[in-house]
Amino acid sequence: MTDDVALAWAYLSRVVEPPCPALAGLVSRVGAVEAAERVRRGEAGEQVNSIAEARREIDSTAADLEILQRLGGRLLTADDDEWPLLAFTGFGGVPDRMRSQAHAPMVLWAIGPALLDEVAYRAAALVGTRASTAYGEFAAADLASGLVEREVAVVSGGAYGIDGAAHRAALAAEGTTVAVLAGGIDVPYPAGHTALLRRIAEHGLVLSEYPPGTRPARHRFLTRNRLVAALAGATVVVEAGARSGAANTAAWARGLGRPVCAVPGPVTSAASVGCHVLLREGARIVTRADEVVEYVGRIGELALDEQRPTSPLDELSDTEKRVYDALPRRGGRTADEVAVASGLPARQVLGPLANLELQGLVVSRDGRWKLSCG
Amino acid sequence: MTDDVALAWAYLSRVVEPPCPALAGLVSRVGAVEAAERVRRGEAGEQVNSIAEARREIDSTAADLEILQRLGGRLLTADDDEWPLLAFTGFGGVPDRMRSQAHAPMVLWAIGPALLDEVAYRAAALVGTRASTAYGEFAAADLASGLVEREVAVVSGGAYGIDGAAHRAALAAEGTTVAVLAGGIDVPYPAGHTALLRRIAEHGLVLSEYPPGTRPARHRFLTRNRLVAALAGATVVVEAGARSGAANTAAWARGLGRPVCAVPGPVTSAASVGCHVLLREGARIVTRADEVVEYVGRIGELALDEQRPTSPLDELSDTEKRVYDALPRRGGRTADEVAVASGLPARQVLGPLANLELQGLVVSRDGRWKLSCG
Repeated sequence: MTDDVALAWAYLSRVVEPPCPALAGLVSRVGAVEAAERVRRGEAGEQVNSIAEARREIDSTAADLEILQRLGGRLLTADDDEWPLLAFTGFGGVPDRMRSQAHAPMVLWAIGPALLDEVAYRAAALVGTRASTAYGEFAAADLASGLVEREVAVVSGGAYGIDGAAHRAALAAEGTTVAVLAGGIDVPYPAGHTALLRRIAEHGLVLSEYPPGTRPARHRFLTRNRLVAALAGATVVVEAGARSGAANTAAWARGLGRPVCAVPGPVTSAASVGCHVLLREGARIVTRADEVVEYVGRIGELALDEQRPTSPLDELSDTEKRVYDALPRRGGRTADEVAVASGLPARQVLGPLANLELQGLVVSRDGRWKLSCG
Repeated sequence: MTDDVALAWAYLSRVVEPPCPALAGLVSRVGAVEAAERVRRGEAGEQVNSIAEARREIDSTAADLEILQRLGGRLLTADDDEWPLLAFTGFGGVPDRMRSQAHAPMVLWAIGPALLDEVAYRAAALVGTRASTAYGEFAAADLASGLVEREVAVVSGGAYGIDGAAHRAALAAEGTTVAVLAGGIDVPYPAGHTALLRRIAEHGLVLSEYPPGTRPARHRFLTRNRLVAALAGATVVVEAGARSGAANTAAWARGLGRPVCAVPGPVTSAASVGCHVLLREGARIVTRADEVVEYVGRIGELALDEQRPTSPLDELSDTEKRVYDALPRRGGRTADEVAVASGLPARQVLGPLANLELQGLVVSRDGRWKLSCG
């Protein structure tokens, strides 16, 4: 990216509140440099002129790019090889109430060694309430470390609670984790996560659609959530109260046609109410990382069934089971007595008795049978 | 029921291991008295003769009926008004591996004031592992008491753990509860539930397909489970390990076309693994009694949505929210500053500011606005 192109993108990133399809349309028609110039001169057409009116005379682009450079970051746009074009498809399918935000980002401010297209190729979003419980944090950490073990990147929002637990566990397992912020990449939010976000930027990726200095605001969290959902193959809500932003991220995932998963929890926990509502509405239940991998992984990458304890009795026929059940632990029963107890004809009990004896499950002495464990 | 008819049914109940469609067919063709006579004489046709061979000479019917009378019980068959004929439909739909047991019962031994048809009209099965946790027992009790408050009977198997918690809570709430046993009604099982089963028999109903004195056996638990599922409009698995009989009851419910529900629990709890497997396989998640009532209740009896906390900000338009978010708590911003912060044209912020002020959410002084909570 040459300097003038970077300056143009930086200007375009700040001059409107993203996402702004009208401006994106102009850029795709005339290019970033020309679009920036037209907006600046108030010659960008009535719609864009109006949208950009309040900010068009602000030009902090040089300062913005200096901050970006100081942080070791980069600007990403659809012109970059690293731009995950496929991740940003599907916005056409979202419900009406989300339509105004349902557009791909135009510019992403990024810091970190991970390449965005590689991340988006194989990532899961782990999201949830800031008011998490120890249970939820454990579940988030367990899933995150299981995912990175299977080379799945963990995308989240950098918030307290579930987000933080997921990022931390991914870092601890030396995996890739991505925090998508609702403010500028130079505005660590929450402030208590300054060190965590710095570590994510060192080892993974910190992303924002907003230029440096932008404060997080309510609507920006919701707009940000669409990027969390879009960058992941599936979104997992780990814990969520009755009213949690995580439900919004889940709605984006659903709108984008990506699987929505939820982790169950105690019905007595307010922090799991939102997960149970999602499950009731059709979200997929996940309890282990490999169940999540099923949804984000390559085709055929299926979770193994839960290990089930087995018993030698599993292999018995129904008749053998009835005969087995009719035998005492002590003493012993004759074949006729076994027939009565099992309700089977006497001639039908001798075969099963012999089989059971062969398998070491029953023993006989003097024409009487009993269980071998007796 | 006259004495000879009762004697015949009691004989038929013991002479084969239920369910026995061949014998049931004979009974429906020639009546109980004649069928009993033919079986006794070995003239019941080759198939029934063979099945009944081991037990046909045993006649403890008079003693059986005396036990029943002493316990204050009654024999129930399809000839009784109380027989819940509709509950025993749907056996044709079960998978092959369950086919041999997929038949309505012929005789039920019953003790208790509740009428079986009334119970079956509006009942839920609450089942689960004997190795329950305090959480599972709480959930079972909570559901049971919520169900009986809504006049739904609680059907279970009388076992330790989840079954016992469900029965006890239903009794404590003065509701109707039904225990279906895998042995004779005079064989309290488990022995530690002798007093509980007596209380169920006093206030609800204790049922068994097996004649007095029959010991519970492994295959009888599985056969019994089909009755638990059949007598309930829906089956709820409250807690179940990876290998629990509750999954068998759930399979019966599914085979009979009744809803299967499961209560979620911590992913860290072995006692919830079976529930999560069921949920993964399509069982419906339930967390509160009124969600269960939806499945067993009359049409239109829907659970209310989980109460969601609300905020005055919920009602704002997107533009109003953006303006609100752009206002400081202290100090104050001019309309132009609000326009820049929100990214909205200056002329579009005055209307929202006025609306927000009318709603008491913002205050203005000397041409500057701030949040009213500041």
